Amino acid sequence: MGKLARDVAVIGVGQTRFGEHWNLTFRELGIEAGFRAMEDAGISSSRIEALYTGTMSSGLFLNQEHVSAMIAEVVGLTENQIPATRIEAAGASGGLAFHQAILDVASGLHDIVVVGGAEKMSDVVSNVATEFVASGADQAWEGLFGATMPSLFALMARKHMHDHGTTKEHLAHVAVKNHVHGAKNPLAQFQREITMDMAVNAAMVADPLGMYDCAPSSDGSASLVLCDMKTAKELSDNPIRVAGTGQGSDSLSLANREEITSMRSTVAASRRAYEMAGVGPGDIKVAEVHDSYTISEIIAIEDLGFFKKGDGGFATERGETALNSTITVNPSGGLKARGHPLGATGIAQINELVIQLRGDAGDRQVKDANIGLAHNIGGTGGTAVVNILEVV
Amino acid sequence: MGKLARDVAVIGVGQTRFGEHWNLTFRELGIEAGFRAMEDAGISSSRIEALYTGTMSSGLFLNQEHVSAMIAEVVGLTENQIPATRIEAAGASGGLAFHQAILDVASGLHDIVVVGGAEKMSDVVSNVATEFVASGADQAWEGLFGATMPSLFALMARKHMHDHGTTKEHLAHVAVKNHVHGAKNPLAQFQREITMDMAVNAAMVADPLGMYDCAPSSDGSASLVLCDMKTAKELSDNPIRVAGTGQGSDSLSLANREEITSMRSTVAASRRAYEMAGVGPGDIKVAEVHDSYTISEIIAIEDLGFFKKGDGGFATERGETALNSTITVNPSGGLKARGHPLGATGIAQINELVIQLRGDAGDRQVKDANIGLAHNIGGTGGTAVVNILEVV
Repeated sequence: MGKLARDVAVIGVGQTRFGEHWNLTFRELGIEAGFRAMEDAGISSSRIEALYTGTMSSGLFLNQEHVSAMIAEVVGLTENQIPATRIEAAGASGGLAFHQAILDVASGLHDIVVVGGAEKMSDVVSNVATEFVASGADQAWEGLFGATMPSLFALMARKHMHDHGTTKEHLAHVAVKNHVHGAKNPLAQFQREITMDMAVNAAMVADPLGMYDCAPSSDGSASLVLCDMKTAKELSDNPIRVAGTGQGSDSLSLANREEITSMRSTVAASRRAYEMAGVGPGDIKVAEVHDSYTISEIIAIEDLGFFKKGDGGFATERGETALNSTITVNPSGGLKARGHPLGATGIAQINELVIQLRGDAGDRQVKDANIGLAHNIGGTGGTAVVNILEVV
Repeated sequence: MGKLARDVAVIGVGQTRFGEHWNLTFRELGIEAGFRAMEDAGISSSRIEALYTGTMSSGLFLNQEHVSAMIAEVVGLTENQIPATRIEAAGASGGLAFHQAILDVASGLHDIVVVGGAEKMSDVVSNVATEFVASGADQAWEGLFGATMPSLFALMARKHMHDHGTTKEHLAHVAVKNHVHGAKNPLAQFQREITMDMAVNAAMVADPLGMYDCAPSSDGSASLVLCDMKTAKELSDNPIRVAGTGQGSDSLSLANREEITSMRSTVAASRRAYEMAGVGPGDIKVAEVHDSYTISEIIAIEDLGFFKKGDGGFATERGETALNSTITVNPSGGLKARGHPLGATGIAQINELVIQLRGDAGDRQVKDANIGLAHNIGGTGGTAVVNILEVV
């Protein structure tokens, strides 16, 4: 166990702009990202052998399950009746769909697959969206008692402050930094900078988390083309290799965890990915981590080993996670500024790494980026997926 | 493509009785089937390296997404933070979870994985359940106009009657035969026989489909333990090998298909599975096929190549699909009599094949069963999965 039978690589990426797409349906979002990824890879849909789709809750948001076959149809892939598989793990649906597609290609079943992530969240009013997003936490032990996702992350933030001296200003520094990055990303939902004053004094959502501590609800889709390394080298001049992939789980409810200032799922997933890749946290130049809330980013950069436990907020304040500092964290703007259409997020993270490792990131380019890490969680960390990519 | 890097085998199976479980939650159903499968495999949960869960719509039925991590937690698997992945493809969720688990083991990532399928459908009133099940069809082009799953299968039945001379009595023969089989299955929802008169003259659901033409709503869970062949031979005296696995897709809506008396997804999935296994329809001794409606079984046994197109109803009338006839179809009782807790169905089919191939099926044992096929569809055939198992 722990070793893949074949090497795999990404050869194409595509994304819609994230935001409020009142005039586009779930299908249309999927079409746009899918075709962009195939165009970027320089292949026609007839070459695609399978499709994986990450979506959190098309059932609740759209009353539509079975969406992978639907996406396959609208991008013309059912002409060959290609396999189409939906993966769901709340906000980790996209990263996990990528992980499953890697296993598919590694198994030898398919050579070229498309992976898409999509969510359409703006068709319901916001308090309903909040309830639907909370279905990624434990309904029986949390949701039933009124807990929503921001309130659960607020508990984690408060405990992190108590144990490690993290401050509300540390949280604000995460938001300000990710908005600086998002302002350089033409596909981000929020392409503007914010000030520390705006972040610290924003309307309260769940104490200590204010509006700028929370990623937005978004519509959007992202897609990529994955294939075995032999095929990748035939089709692409700059394939990006999957060096490592790891997944981990933890209890859905916070109450069943010994500790809520760290996520065991992230620690396990990153350990597995680092082992497969044969690298450590110090080798990572650029990381896309799951900042669904500002506290999530602080916990993530500690659990991933970039900074020691308790130092995440201080490191952010010192500027060590800004563009071209110690380690660039969320050059895309992260969930906070790029936007967070649940199932699309994990794929958008991979796409940002691919663009960075190709050297195509323009104003937000991380210098000498040769190895990158993506970290995607579901709910409050019941699922975590870590993928490590590298230049071939 | 098309060949797996490692051989995989099933070494343990477990199932709850299917039916109305008013006093058991989704979690408790998952626990019962999971522990039974581990007990059957003779291994403790500490040996399990990953979990796959097939569930259609815990979001709509229970307002709970992210259920694979939840199931991992309740069976004690989050102690090691093992990966837990949910797969969704409407009624094909279980068969597709099995397919993905096969790819995982074949890829080399894990050696021993558990696959579970579960659904809890009785906590909502029946017209709401009908709406939720319809979310596996196309909501924009079918559901919005009032189409439910039975009405769509009624269209297929009517067209099959028109084109091929299939009769309402042919449909009834499917139900009567599957109830005969279900009466011999101690885990079936309906363990009683029905008469032709009962089936033909039952209350109409969607003309020409009456009550006995439709599989029931059910609560239930099924689980199995899968591993690479080397590990299987160390742990088991009678591992059952996965000889072939195939998946196919088609448009979600019937309107976008050239033909509705055949499912291109089934034809493609079975072609892929037969090719991988190196066998043909004539080699199959026992098959579990997706009889969500009686017409579904008739279409399936034609599309799988057991009988020529249009002969499915006549062959059923001739008794060629009964226990120990030409080919035994649905010895478990099928979805009709065993019950149809959506995500659990595909796993229950595999479990029945394993029990048959081990020779442990008692009164419903298929003589000389050495190779079996399972066929699982989502919605009206937007997804199809075919798995072929054989005695080692």
